[in-house]
Amino acid sequence: MQNGLFWIVPLCAVIALGFAGIFFKAMMKESEGTDVMKRIAGHVRAGAMAYLRQQYCVVGVVFIVLCVLFAWMAYGPGLQNGWVWFAFLTGGFFSGLAGYIGMKTATYASARTANAARRSLNDGLKIAFRSGAVMGLVVVGLALLDISLWWWVLNYFVDEPSAAEKTIMITTTMLTFGMGASTQALFARVGGGIFTKAADVGADLVGKVEAGIPEDDPRNPATIADNVGDNVGDVAGMGADLYESYCGSILATAALGAAAFRAEPDVQFNAVLAPMLIAAFGVILSLLGIFMVRTREGASQQQLLRALDKGINFSSVLIVAASFLVVHLLGLSYWICGSVIVGLLTGIVIGKATEYYTSHAYKPTRDIAKSAATGPATVIIKGIGTGMISTAIPVFAIVVGIILAFLFAADFNFSNVSMGLYGVGIAAVGMLSTLGITLATDAYGPIADNAGGNAEMSQLGEEVRHRTDALDALGNTTAATGKGFAIGSAALTGLALIASYIEEIRIGLTRAGEHVLTIGERVVNTVDASLADFMHYYDITLMNPKVLAGIFIGSMMAFVFCGLTMNAVGRAAQKMVNEVRRQFREIKGILAGTAEPDYARCVEISTRGAQREMVFPSVLAIIVPIVVGFVFGVSGVVGLLAGGLGSGFVLAVFMANAGGAWDNAKKYIEEGNLGGKGSDTHKATVIGDTVGDPFKDTSGPSLNILIKLMSMVAIVMAGVTCLL
Amino acid sequence: MQNGLFWIVPLCAVIALGFAGIFFKAMMKESEGTDVMKRIAGHVRAGAMAYLRQQYCVVGVVFIVLCVLFAWMAYGPGLQNGWVWFAFLTGGFFSGLAGYIGMKTATYASARTANAARRSLNDGLKIAFRSGAVMGLVVVGLALLDISLWWWVLNYFVDEPSAAEKTIMITTTMLTFGMGASTQALFARVGGGIFTKAADVGADLVGKVEAGIPEDDPRNPATIADNVGDNVGDVAGMGADLYESYCGSILATAALGAAAFRAEPDVQFNAVLAPMLIAAFGVILSLLGIFMVRTREGASQQQLLRALDKGINFSSVLIVAASFLVVHLLGLSYWICGSVIVGLLTGIVIGKATEYYTSHAYKPTRDIAKSAATGPATVIIKGIGTGMISTAIPVFAIVVGIILAFLFAADFNFSNVSMGLYGVGIAAVGMLSTLGITLATDAYGPIADNAGGNAEMSQLGEEVRHRTDALDALGNTTAATGKGFAIGSAALTGLALIASYIEEIRIGLTRAGEHVLTIGERVVNTVDASLADFMHYYDITLMNPKVLAGIFIGSMMAFVFCGLTMNAVGRAAQKMVNEVRRQFREIKGILAGTAEPDYARCVEISTRGAQREMVFPSVLAIIVPIVVGFVFGVSGVVGLLAGGLGSGFVLAVFMANAGGAWDNAKKYIEEGNLGGKGSDTHKATVIGDTVGDPFKDTSGPSLNILIKLMSMVAIVMAGVTCLL
Repeated sequence: MQNGLFWIVPLCAVIALGFAGIFFKAMMKESEGTDVMKRIAGHVRAGAMAYLRQQYCVVGVVFIVLCVLFAWMAYGPGLQNGWVWFAFLTGGFFSGLAGYIGMKTATYASARTANAARRSLNDGLKIAFRSGAVMGLVVVGLALLDISLWWWVLNYFVDEPSAAEKTIMITTTMLTFGMGASTQALFARVGGGIFTKAADVGADLVGKVEAGIPEDDPRNPATIADNVGDNVGDVAGMGADLYESYCGSILATAALGAAAFRAEPDVQFNAVLAPMLIAAFGVILSLLGIFMVRTREGASQQQLLRALDKGINFSSVLIVAASFLVVHLLGLSYWICGSVIVGLLTGIVIGKATEYYTSHAYKPTRDIAKSAATGPATVIIKGIGTGMISTAIPVFAIVVGIILAFLFAADFNFSNVSMGLYGVGIAAVGMLSTLGITLATDAYGPIADNAGGNAEMSQLGEEVRHRTDALDALGNTTAATGKGFAIGSAALTGLALIASYIEEIRIGLTRAGEHVLTIGERVVNTVDASLADFMHYYDITLMNPKVLAGIFIGSMMAFVFCGLTMNAVGRAAQKMVNEVRRQFREIKGILAGTAEPDYARCVEISTRGAQREMVFPSVLAIIVPIVVGFVFGVSGVVGLLAGGLGSGFVLAVFMANAGGAWDNAKKYIEEGNLGGKGSDTHKATVIGDTVGDPFKDTSGPSLNILIKLMSMVAIVMAGVTCLL
Repeated sequence: MQNGLFWIVPLCAVIALGFAGIFFKAMMKESEGTDVMKRIAGHVRAGAMAYLRQQYCVVGVVFIVLCVLFAWMAYGPGLQNGWVWFAFLTGGFFSGLAGYIGMKTATYASARTANAARRSLNDGLKIAFRSGAVMGLVVVGLALLDISLWWWVLNYFVDEPSAAEKTIMITTTMLTFGMGASTQALFARVGGGIFTKAADVGADLVGKVEAGIPEDDPRNPATIADNVGDNVGDVAGMGADLYESYCGSILATAALGAAAFRAEPDVQFNAVLAPMLIAAFGVILSLLGIFMVRTREGASQQQLLRALDKGINFSSVLIVAASFLVVHLLGLSYWICGSVIVGLLTGIVIGKATEYYTSHAYKPTRDIAKSAATGPATVIIKGIGTGMISTAIPVFAIVVGIILAFLFAADFNFSNVSMGLYGVGIAAVGMLSTLGITLATDAYGPIADNAGGNAEMSQLGEEVRHRTDALDALGNTTAATGKGFAIGSAALTGLALIASYIEEIRIGLTRAGEHVLTIGERVVNTVDASLADFMHYYDITLMNPKVLAGIFIGSMMAFVFCGLTMNAVGRAAQKMVNEVRRQFREIKGILAGTAEPDYARCVEISTRGAQREMVFPSVLAIIVPIVVGFVFGVSGVVGLLAGGLGSGFVLAVFMANAGGAWDNAKKYIEEGNLGGKGSDTHKATVIGDTVGDPFKDTSGPSLNILIKLMSMVAIVMAGVTCLL
């Protein structure tokens, strides 16, 4: 603990959690509205909590199995240090906790938002946005708290001959806690994504298409399940996901900093501290930004949007200034701030591209809507084509971002690989530094959506529903940026994690007593070997067939994982469709409104479907890197991670954008264009939207986690693969 | 010309072409049937030829531009040798010629097949299969003839200080002719693919869905265009495509052989000869196989299929024996035959997997059909999910194939990179060695399809149509294997081409006067440097950000290319739909059968659409490797090629299988299952099939060529990139 600045990190974490508590309490003081509203909110809350409990049981089993494995590896053959299994466990715990708190808040907030929207749009916004902010602040607060605690504990207990080695040991051990978070996040995203889309697709296909009743109609047996789905998928899933992204970027960067500056222990310590401090300052700036989203009573929607944007822009601009301060305090090169700026800009460019390709204010989505004139087939073709083309700008942004972030941190020398990759990590941290506020704007979307559901089911009337829809739409414009940041940071963090894997290999070799690497005629000390030396030692070049095998398998993994989750949604939706049809058939009076449908049964079907279906793809993501490591060794694993990163990123962008564009093409027509609601063009776009549902809410976002989880697994297993 | 065995190659080529001529003449002797049949066949032939002429004009412009560029590079800065531009030109010419002859044969054969099918199924099969064999034999004949001619010419003119260097110079110059073939093939596949699917989708959407008239009904204005499309897309496109694959695999392997054995000029020469000789023996064995597909009059369809299979199996088994003979004659290691066997087996496994995932005899396609119970959205979700999952087996097959083919040729030592990659090339040659017969079984599908169209339009009655459908179905079962071979060989050849690129870099450096490479403290002679040395010299490792940038861009290229071609089909189909609707509206009496629709106008629309739309994606495929080379240098280019190979292969498998499965799910229902023709489930699968059309016939197969063309472009431009 050589630098008192460290204490800023837990301090900011506590501040974030404190304000999250204050916002939560303030929200809870609001009224939940009429008895009907309370009852419906209660149904949704109970369903969501029941789901989460069951999900944690399944995930718990996986965690126990993995912990036993890690404990055996540590205390048996000694391939790991003894903290790994425990770090893994806490990462999973905190990631789950972040999702749990976020979801609990959301389920309390939705009826309150609907009730406030009865008074005014503005009141609705305030409650929804502040509740979203609870989630944002809890995620960053818990993450920084967890990181600080571990840092402190490990500093106390870990004992290594030199300060430099101690820092390396600590940062790499902490990476393991990232694997816990990633594992939890993958289950949350996949399970939640399957739940929500099974319910959504099922509710739409039978309710809207067959029975002809509107969205969120209380006569639809799947409607509660649909609303529960928004909470477990979009809120709890997203919370766990972004907790993982946030931790992952900070931890990977810290580990790379420790490795890059191992020769200078003082600089090293500061390089490790830098990502944490940038994140900590980002928390405070996010908090200030959240407070700026205060509007006068009676403000127009345009003004609300500007207020929201102002908050985000304020945080983003100041984080650049803050990063200069951090770098100055830590005595690092000012060029590192260039990496922070690059990270922010990359996120913004990807976000803008996402908006261009998915908003119906622009040509691509309108063209998809227009193609509905010739039926659903052309809608699908056009959507897939446009989604594929939309990958170009994000890839260019990431490529330019990687190169610049690398060069800024590497003194503009491509040979300074370790420092350059540290810069790439810093760019990811910069991109996510304002997560507190960007996540707030993201998370309030599903809250507004649920508020709308509650309003509809409680029959509060058109006007309230219009207001909640407006709130939802408001969130969509900022959500595009949020998605850009999530996907962009996944690519950058994924890259940083591949580099961290090599660092783990170094530690594994040292622990196994391999103190020198023989590269051709050269003999290098394992501790002093550069990243390039490791590349040559393991021949991680593109002419090594094992590397190429890894690249093929990595590309395939992204596709197979998507395919499995797509089919899982299809199967679960099928069951939901059959159940809803059965209820309409067997429970007389549902459609007349004289009998209440069996909501709980639908929630149960989605829950069971999600629990059953989420296990195989998630476990596959854990097993494949292990198997590839055993069969092809280190070079195969790096190939796997690089192939998975390249294909996974492009595939994730494609799926998210195609799904988003289909959704908005439908909304464009629903707004009265090209025939409007109920027309044949509308029906064609509804089919597009249904196909897009698992694209954008199940498979696409899960890929972001898959990319990182595979790297995390590789890192944790490095002690074994390095010896093969 | 140190080895007389070489003359076997042109001899086999001449034999193949001779028999192609004999089969063609025999087919021409048959009657084209009634006057109506002749008139319709004439329409289709005229449309197809008109299209091809126009396509060659567009492609001609691109070739002239590129030839001028290459000539400038050769005679200006001296970055290339003077043969490159001319080799490029001949490759393009012969590839186009193969497609042209194949298509001409097909357009003459379809009415004759329909007419023969009036007599018996067996007669129809014979004409269709022998006409397909014309295409198969022309492709392999022209390819081997072109290769032999070039080999002979270059041996005569090229002058290098040592025999070893001369062989290297010759083989690498010949690779350029592969780029000509690839360029022509890409235009043919993309243009033909857009033409056929625009016509198909347009004809189906208005004719079948809106007007409710059956497939190939003469009242549908787009029906001639649809039949023309089968010829220009499935026949001319496939011919150019497989000519390119066949040449590419032989040329890449020859170049790698020359490089791997440069230290032993005698072995070197034989290693270069080996792929040519294996291919030459394959031609003879294919021819024998084709003759074995002779059935007694009155044979059942089952017997026909067995006869077909027998022919293919005969050729495949004997090619293994022939490869032992070749290796024995050339005095090479017998283990190289292992690579041939691996290549054949890999192709078979991929083919079987394709069949499993796309035939409605198996569960996956039946499940897609079943998902139609809940409408088109679930059909699409299930099809995409299943298509993505179906990439797993082909990837495993390719990975195992690469590793084994590598090890067999590399004395089971992963460090013998040059020899190992030569083995990978040999595996590709082995896979394609029996192309003469596999292509015959592939090419007769569209001929049978067109025969069916002719029968329908000439109103020959149900029975004839049933027979032509049966012929078509017979082709489908063998076509799956053909597809497996095409896609598998693309992956192996793509890999071999990346290695060839490095060899070109070596030549470029030598030509530029860079006679030594400085790698760390080592100084290596450029001529003696191993592939691994080049990897280290250019730092083509996975931690080099330029390599990673290349991988991202390569992955993106596959998606963007698919997206562009998908959207091109969408746009062209839209125009076709409008035209067909206009004709139904403006030309009175079409539906009553009293007025003839304006077929030519539809052909023109498809032609124009294809010409306009094919240019951008194809030119992009040529420009991107050049730009990446200029910006990121050699390491970026190799990253690009590896990323494109990994993603492109997986994406190609996904698109081909999803498209095939949708097609057969529809056929499964049409056979009377799950509601049968006209039911809602049928309509849902028709939408799936329409979406699948551009998947399996435009974007998917074009990706095979894209992978290789990008490598070919890189190879031709190597003289420039090596100096950056």
